[in-house]
Amino acid sequence: MTVSQESSLYIASSPGEFITAVPLAKAYRLLNHGPTVLVSAAHNGARNVMAAAWNMALNFEPAQVTVVLDRATWTRQLIAASGKFALSVPSLAIAAETLAVGRLSAHDLPAESRDKIAQFGLQTFIGKDVDLPLIEGCVAWLECDVVPEASTESRYDLFIGQVTAAWADARVFADGHWRYEADTPDALRTLHYVAGGTFMTIGNSVQVAPAAPRSVQD
Amino acid sequence: MTVSQESSLYIASSPGEFITAVPLAKAYRLLNHGPTVLVSAAHNGARNVMAAAWNMALNFEPAQVTVVLDRATWTRQLIAASGKFALSVPSLAIAAETLAVGRLSAHDLPAESRDKIAQFGLQTFIGKDVDLPLIEGCVAWLECDVVPEASTESRYDLFIGQVTAAWADARVFADGHWRYEADTPDALRTLHYVAGGTFMTIGNSVQVAPAAPRSVQD
Repeated sequence: MTVSQESSLYIASSPGEFITAVPLAKAYRLLNHGPTVLVSAAHNGARNVMAAAWNMALNFEPAQVTVVLDRATWTRQLIAASGKFALSVPSLAIAAETLAVGRLSAHDLPAESRDKIAQFGLQTFIGKDVDLPLIEGCVAWLECDVVPEASTESRYDLFIGQVTAAWADARVFADGHWRYEADTPDALRTLHYVAGGTFMTIGNSVQVAPAAPRSVQD
Repeated sequence: MTVSQESSLYIASSPGEFITAVPLAKAYRLLNHGPTVLVSAAHNGARNVMAAAWNMALNFEPAQVTVVLDRATWTRQLIAASGKFALSVPSLAIAAETLAVGRLSAHDLPAESRDKIAQFGLQTFIGKDVDLPLIEGCVAWLECDVVPEASTESRYDLFIGQVTAAWADARVFADGHWRYEADTPDALRTLHYVAGGTFMTIGNSVQVAPAAPRSVQD
């Protein structure tokens, strides 16, 4: 994968060979299994990233998602100003960085160093929206425009995004389905935060046959 | 575990030997890793259950959660009428029933058989709120009072619940942390829905050390 320069904000690299577009109608599936995500945003030459375990799909058509963004975060300020955010679904390969950007607030860094993407050496690439830095080392990405909902934003820190583009790593997401099997490398598995620096990785796929209702069985 | 009779609505059984109370301050952790849940409710002698992949924690204090409930569902009608719902976090042991209650609408059953809990032979027990049937075969449970938000309910099918009691299976959740290790039986692993009858089970815990910011490293 061609990577952007750490020192530059907006040098778009080509998406890597495994990154493929996901139809908007299937975008909800990228979050359906409950991964912790990285939330990134940029505005007026500044950018940042944070972690968020509290995210979910919200609607199929139009494709919408929702995420809780603490009001104290610098990333939320960038999102409020730009009206956009990206969700990147990290893999075990960048668990240390995911934990770090979730723990450290940009407000605790010097003003000139408030970019946690650079602070933790994360690499970015551009998908469709040139104003949204997507995080490398992840296995899925959703670009979103904020659907303004002042009441839920202020009362619950809940932000709604309409998905404008979605991408996934074809090694683990193909034909609209996650493909985690016994031989999938752990490095490509999504992260599910517990507490105290502990994540769980996603396990393997299980094909299930539905139970039959008794009124049909009888 | 003492089980309730399938044919009776409200025969409370004793929580099983492994079911332990979870402090409300830690209740969010039961959903933090993104499991698919079963949503159950009861009102005026009727009860039902549905599946919901779109759920998440919303707040620490007071402990709140949110879940998307399609307006076509009978369970949502029961919740609107009773002002309460329970979330039960199913394990692989009841994957077939979880898939089935997610696919079949109670509205497609005869009016006298609209109870999917009975239709699929699910067993229930009572935690704290005698009006909330909790589903056996699960590994965590949250009892919730609806926080009325007419706008988000009607526009996004999004319901907010304030957690009034929480429980977990001590074999996999102890001291406020999920404990999924290599020797944890698959039957106790939480389910994470993909599509087309495929779930992923949760994998194992990974302890991560956070990356250090460059401004500290330098």
